[in-house]
Amino acid sequence: MIGEENLEAVALDEKRGELLIIDQTLLPNEFRRIGLRTTEDIWEAIGRLRVRGAPAIGIAAGFGGYLAARSSNAADTPGMFRDFLKAKERLASARPTAVNLFHALDRLEKKFRTLLDAPRSVAENAILAEAKAIRDEDAAMCRALGENALSLLKPGMGILTHCNAGQLAASRLGTALAPIYLGQERGYRFKVFADETRPLLQGARLTAFELMRYGIDVTLICDNMAAAVMDRGWIQAVLVGCDRVAANGDTANKIGTSGVAILAKYHNIPFYVLGPTSSIDMTCPSGREIKIEERPAGEVTDLWYEKPMAPKGVKVFNPAFDVTDHALISGIITQYGVAKPPFEEAFEQFFRVKGIGD
Amino acid sequence: MIGEENLEAVALDEKRGELLIIDQTLLPNEFRRIGLRTTEDIWEAIGRLRVRGAPAIGIAAGFGGYLAARSSNAADTPGMFRDFLKAKERLASARPTAVNLFHALDRLEKKFRTLLDAPRSVAENAILAEAKAIRDEDAAMCRALGENALSLLKPGMGILTHCNAGQLAASRLGTALAPIYLGQERGYRFKVFADETRPLLQGARLTAFELMRYGIDVTLICDNMAAAVMDRGWIQAVLVGCDRVAANGDTANKIGTSGVAILAKYHNIPFYVLGPTSSIDMTCPSGREIKIEERPAGEVTDLWYEKPMAPKGVKVFNPAFDVTDHALISGIITQYGVAKPPFEEAFEQFFRVKGIGD
Repeated sequence: MIGEENLEAVALDEKRGELLIIDQTLLPNEFRRIGLRTTEDIWEAIGRLRVRGAPAIGIAAGFGGYLAARSSNAADTPGMFRDFLKAKERLASARPTAVNLFHALDRLEKKFRTLLDAPRSVAENAILAEAKAIRDEDAAMCRALGENALSLLKPGMGILTHCNAGQLAASRLGTALAPIYLGQERGYRFKVFADETRPLLQGARLTAFELMRYGIDVTLICDNMAAAVMDRGWIQAVLVGCDRVAANGDTANKIGTSGVAILAKYHNIPFYVLGPTSSIDMTCPSGREIKIEERPAGEVTDLWYEKPMAPKGVKVFNPAFDVTDHALISGIITQYGVAKPPFEEAFEQFFRVKGIGD
Repeated sequence: MIGEENLEAVALDEKRGELLIIDQTLLPNEFRRIGLRTTEDIWEAIGRLRVRGAPAIGIAAGFGGYLAARSSNAADTPGMFRDFLKAKERLASARPTAVNLFHALDRLEKKFRTLLDAPRSVAENAILAEAKAIRDEDAAMCRALGENALSLLKPGMGILTHCNAGQLAASRLGTALAPIYLGQERGYRFKVFADETRPLLQGARLTAFELMRYGIDVTLICDNMAAAVMDRGWIQAVLVGCDRVAANGDTANKIGTSGVAILAKYHNIPFYVLGPTSSIDMTCPSGREIKIEERPAGEVTDLWYEKPMAPKGVKVFNPAFDVTDHALISGIITQYGVAKPPFEEAFEQFFRVKGIGD
């Protein structure tokens, strides 16, 4: 069954005390799992995008927080907690936009605070259980979200996606790709178009890779070909993930997403954002308040940090994300259902029923 | 003075009987001129984009036609003409969308037909003069077009451009970049943003290269960052070239152009197409009739044909051009003036005054 096999982006090797990740910077040329033991290793892997995708980063941070506690030399739980807090601060600085990173670490801290009087071994086990719960809830979330999205799609549809919000970005099934995997199991035969997603080519390297692996009909295009593909009538829906959604529905996602949304609007194609409710930040009124990470020029000028493709010293603007205006979004699909405009009301409904932070 | 120095994309070495081109596939890492003697060499150079840009291709085809005649072993002009026709057929097949290629070759053929009774040496010189006239008229065209475009711009403006319609694509000044060069001479201090232009990166490799060379403020972005740059209010005009313009104003240009036009419309930014009237094809009623060249998958999956950036065997759609709907275009700027909608009427005015094919 799809999602059950060994394409897990993040796993914990409990025996060795290692976080196992697929090094996504090497894909598609090399499929290699690497083991990370220290907070520094995990910080580097998140910062360099060896592990990426909001849910996967959250899971990695959860296990990373646990490993920091486990490897603490402190004799008691408060000492272990202090070592955890140092690791937490470090890990939280790895990617400034990823709200799941902060969520996961905050969740562990909250749990930890209930355990300060417990023996160290008890606390350690409880933190491990909490980190595993983050992962397991993510898997359940992806499946529920995928079912909700699939209800909006029809067999044979052409679907455009941007970046990678698939299995490699989450625990199982992914977010934006979850309905595609579920549809594949049920004979929907979607025709998927994957934007390559410059500068780091997550669409070419990761989305095309994982969809091909499951026999899904996927065609790779450069980002600037999306309009041409839509103009030919090949796209009936756009599905993208999200890194952070403001209370009004403005959505921060991989750079290029807002452009695709504008093209979809022009071509009257529904544009759906898929993500867990943990990506919705009700304390953030609109996209204007979302801080956008800018990344090094070398990602644009020297692909894979190897061969220059632009003149030496050229000025570069390299934002990692952009904000899609809520007015361009047809629906925001979560594990609890499909939010339609006005989004703020729909979100409040989710949180009223399920409790914030779920 | 800008445009006078040695950045000429195409030149003729009369003594050696060679077409001299800057091999643009090597830029920006290597600046190398190569000499082309045979029709096959020139065909390969056009097909592989060593020389590219509609006007430059026209100039190369003109000199290529002359060189084919000159190297003919025929004793008389009709024999030389037959050899020219063979070369013409071959050269015309190098790029299916480039109307300037056909124009230049047709123009030489027309000239040739008036010379069939002349001695071979006289005919050869007359063909050389015709090929040089194609180049010289192009230089004059670029300057006139640049002045017309500059009249629409204000000092300090942010300007977005896509692909390369600069000096490397034409004889002097280029088309879309001509007003930027003229403005630079006059202290306009434009802030230029260059789309890198996947898959072949003409924006990164060529536009950024030539603008930096003249001290112009240029920032390189990935194609999918154009919307983010517009959203920040950094762009006051978009300038692009064109490969072919239909009678209704629909414009074929480098893939990605139509997407930029849609983004500009959404952000209320004027979108200008710049090109010679020779790019306007009044026999082509609309963009639907323009044949779009599709290029090899390897351009997308294997950058520089060296390192794979996508899974082996992935399906790829790689159109070289797209068609921008005339309704998205604020003005089409030619050497004779600025055409505003309805374009067909404006074009007819150009051709009534100046004669078709000028």
